[in-house]
Amino acid sequence: MNLEFIALGGLGEIGKNMMAFKFEDRLLVVDAGVKFPDEKTPGVDLIIPDYSYLVQNREKVLGILLTHGHEDHVGALPFLLQEVPAPVFGTDITLGLASGRINELGIDWEPNPVNPGDQLELGPFSVEFLQVTHSVPGCLGLAIKTSLGTVIYSGDFKFDQTPVDGRKIDLARFAELSRQGVLCLLCDSTNAEEEGFAPSEQKVKAVFEGIFRSAPHRIIVTTFASNVHRIQQIISTAYEFNRKVLIDGMSLVRVVNVAQELGYLRIPEGTLIKAEDISRYPRKSVLIITTGSQGEPLSALSRIASGEHKKIKLEPGDTVVFSADPIPGNETLVAETIDNLFRQKAEVIYGPLSDAHVSGHGYSEDIKLMINLTRPRYFIPVHGEYRHLVKSGRLALEMGIKESQIFILENGDQVSFSPGKAFVKGRIPISPKFVDGLSVDDLSSVVLRERQHLGQEGFVAFFSCLNRKIRKIIGPEIHFKGFLPERMAQEIREELRSNAILVLNQCMSENLDLGACKQKVKEVLQRYFSKKLRKRPFILVDLLEENEGE
Amino acid sequence: MNLEFIALGGLGEIGKNMMAFKFEDRLLVVDAGVKFPDEKTPGVDLIIPDYSYLVQNREKVLGILLTHGHEDHVGALPFLLQEVPAPVFGTDITLGLASGRINELGIDWEPNPVNPGDQLELGPFSVEFLQVTHSVPGCLGLAIKTSLGTVIYSGDFKFDQTPVDGRKIDLARFAELSRQGVLCLLCDSTNAEEEGFAPSEQKVKAVFEGIFRSAPHRIIVTTFASNVHRIQQIISTAYEFNRKVLIDGMSLVRVVNVAQELGYLRIPEGTLIKAEDISRYPRKSVLIITTGSQGEPLSALSRIASGEHKKIKLEPGDTVVFSADPIPGNETLVAETIDNLFRQKAEVIYGPLSDAHVSGHGYSEDIKLMINLTRPRYFIPVHGEYRHLVKSGRLALEMGIKESQIFILENGDQVSFSPGKAFVKGRIPISPKFVDGLSVDDLSSVVLRERQHLGQEGFVAFFSCLNRKIRKIIGPEIHFKGFLPERMAQEIREELRSNAILVLNQCMSENLDLGACKQKVKEVLQRYFSKKLRKRPFILVDLLEENEGE
Repeated sequence: MNLEFIALGGLGEIGKNMMAFKFEDRLLVVDAGVKFPDEKTPGVDLIIPDYSYLVQNREKVLGILLTHGHEDHVGALPFLLQEVPAPVFGTDITLGLASGRINELGIDWEPNPVNPGDQLELGPFSVEFLQVTHSVPGCLGLAIKTSLGTVIYSGDFKFDQTPVDGRKIDLARFAELSRQGVLCLLCDSTNAEEEGFAPSEQKVKAVFEGIFRSAPHRIIVTTFASNVHRIQQIISTAYEFNRKVLIDGMSLVRVVNVAQELGYLRIPEGTLIKAEDISRYPRKSVLIITTGSQGEPLSALSRIASGEHKKIKLEPGDTVVFSADPIPGNETLVAETIDNLFRQKAEVIYGPLSDAHVSGHGYSEDIKLMINLTRPRYFIPVHGEYRHLVKSGRLALEMGIKESQIFILENGDQVSFSPGKAFVKGRIPISPKFVDGLSVDDLSSVVLRERQHLGQEGFVAFFSCLNRKIRKIIGPEIHFKGFLPERMAQEIREELRSNAILVLNQCMSENLDLGACKQKVKEVLQRYFSKKLRKRPFILVDLLEENEGE
Repeated sequence: MNLEFIALGGLGEIGKNMMAFKFEDRLLVVDAGVKFPDEKTPGVDLIIPDYSYLVQNREKVLGILLTHGHEDHVGALPFLLQEVPAPVFGTDITLGLASGRINELGIDWEPNPVNPGDQLELGPFSVEFLQVTHSVPGCLGLAIKTSLGTVIYSGDFKFDQTPVDGRKIDLARFAELSRQGVLCLLCDSTNAEEEGFAPSEQKVKAVFEGIFRSAPHRIIVTTFASNVHRIQQIISTAYEFNRKVLIDGMSLVRVVNVAQELGYLRIPEGTLIKAEDISRYPRKSVLIITTGSQGEPLSALSRIASGEHKKIKLEPGDTVVFSADPIPGNETLVAETIDNLFRQKAEVIYGPLSDAHVSGHGYSEDIKLMINLTRPRYFIPVHGEYRHLVKSGRLALEMGIKESQIFILENGDQVSFSPGKAFVKGRIPISPKFVDGLSVDDLSSVVLRERQHLGQEGFVAFFSCLNRKIRKIIGPEIHFKGFLPERMAQEIREELRSNAILVLNQCMSENLDLGACKQKVKEVLQRYFSKKLRKRPFILVDLLEENEGE
């Protein structure tokens, strides 16, 4: 009797969460998220987990459980479903948020809405859905039961005792499950470095009230599009202070529609206004919620900050509130947006850690409380970069769990549970897949490296056509792109052409084949750029021969 | 009687500081710094200020004053000196730190060492050098006096009442100058957002003692190469705990040599060891100071963290201390290094705000104290991004300086002071210059944009040679770089070739010129990639004609 656990994504990183459980030769998948590219992965749209393991075992997959609707938990679903069609389970709002990209890509699927408290039999698994609190409604923890025992996955969570929608984390049920015995706890470790407890979402309300009370003109609030609780607080507080609300930014509008439709957002009648109508209201009666909290260049707020937004213009005295913290990596973009807002004489309320924001992920005391509540035999920290997993593991150690029962894993590690035993039995090779335009692939590291080289140094393309018989050289043409300013390029082009023609003539005299000629020309160019300019552009040399062709 | 002030760099940014004062048709230059590139300026080595204004007026420049030896104040000196040869003034260690790149580039210069308290007549200017405290020794503030009055520049500073080298900020002299009347204060505004006073460098000593006391094995400390005070504390504390010290990393070694030579570092005899000898000492008797506090990929610490360092290997239980905070933009690189160190089972002591580090720049109370100490009539915040300048200006407002006497400037703004008046008289156009390999240029935004396009999307190059008379098409050859994995490229290459050949034949039938043919081929390729792959690579099309050539 053997239960196997593998994380296919989400360990040693924040993003592309995906886990699998295997029991009696059947598989359960938990979450299917994406990760957004950074400077190491230029030009790709999305990074998704390597789920080859699931594809190879597709007929064994009983279902895909979604803990909540954030992109790093549902964004890869349409890609996964194309190769591993299986029923999908999640709360209605989770499925609603996931459906966006699924519909966009025209994928068929079988969404099954569940509620906290529901229990489900899926082959040899019995799954119970648990209410937890996070920065989006409809978040679930999971209790996955087999004859071996119960594994609890916290999902993304924090202990918010005063959640905006009143749906508190189900402490009683967690405690009951622990009394029955919890084999293993998989715990969200994002904020394991932070001391104390994560503050309640409620804390932000007082901050909003303070700001909205004294803001003389328009207010613009930017936050994460998926944070429905925050949007609820912004709207409710705006209403209290007699402000109409405009929601600007595609992703925001989408989320608000889904949330409203499913009853997760209560917006008083007549509160929402359209962009075209904005000038009908005095500035102090308007509040705008926008995308752009991460300084994303095409977002509503960035365009407002640079003056490019067609419908929303800033005026001195307008107040802009950053109700979000910069995700690591985005700090410079956010700082630029803030600077641009100040240039327009707006009053900007911002971080580094915004008072008008609280994290949705539990801090170290939340993690310790979760451990105490569930009293697991084994502990696997998840959803964090390596140092977060290490810190989370140390919290478990502090709580009395033995080091041999704490697993700090990497993506692909396979943990095997059997009666009285648990160990890492191996690691399946994992290589993340990239969504690049319409292709989903192991965008080979060659392509990424080429992009990095091109992006740093630009390229030089050399092209000529040879006729060996009459010793004729057509061209050569030399193109520089992303390499030198045109003025400088012109200065050196002639010299390069002469050098190259010398080499080509020599190659033809020596009767070298085309490949060897290309190589010689490339070397001449490389040496020139390196010595004279200390540059190393990407060099492409192509030679055509007259006897070829059609 | 008119005094003019222009900042050529350092406003609205952290980096490439350079300012100029003009009086009676003579110029004084203050600082000549560089800025390091980011993702907007791919592939360049350095960004330097646009000092065209100084070049145009080169014969009027009386001298270049350097406040301290940080790269953002001296790094552009060799480039400036090539076009504006002028005597350079600074403390001996400042000149020592500046001399690195100057010697590397073989520039002639006239360094003039000065001491705090020295006064200098330079044409119509009388310059007094003032002792201030910062994160490198030999830091100066400046009092620039003309018949119009005294302008005080704080330099980079904080009020450190317990500096490591005992040389405190010269409060008395600042106060005396204020009694004589200060026309304008230019103030370092980097940390204007921070409440309170910047902590003293001394605070770090207790933290080091705590760490070094209990570290069981080797200790590695990483910090900014130029922070001589910090290096002094690390070495002194290592000595207290009977550890030998190895210094690893080129820039660090250089700074330590310069500082030791000039008497700014006191290293007990026999404390320093070489990398080759490291295994002769028990692990608990060794401390290593390395570069890499910013996660720089080729730095000593990054190579240690990834296991690639040839001489220094980590063992479980080694302690790594980050005695620096990530500069905005570097957070992800630093996080990666930390994760890799944890993977090697090292104990890592780090931020987000390291206890083992304090900033060298004054917080808001330091700025207010400086304003109170100098009691200037006018206030110009410098050395900060726009929001820092705004916040700094607000501190001045709080201190009673009128809004009309506070100038929040951009690079290039010209401030004119005359008796009883000061105003922004205009802005000279500024466009930063890039050091790219051996060229120093306005790397046209075209080149940068091309690099960004190439870096995101890669390119496709299409070559063919035509003979219209016999309707022959040689090739075509299609190259993909940084665009698609080779496997996918092979799949579409044939289709693309056929499409292109059709177009070329058509072009020849219609007798279109070469330029028009190229355009048509490009359009066919663009449409294909856009529709079938949703990609927009950079496309280069070149066609040669047989009648051309040599």
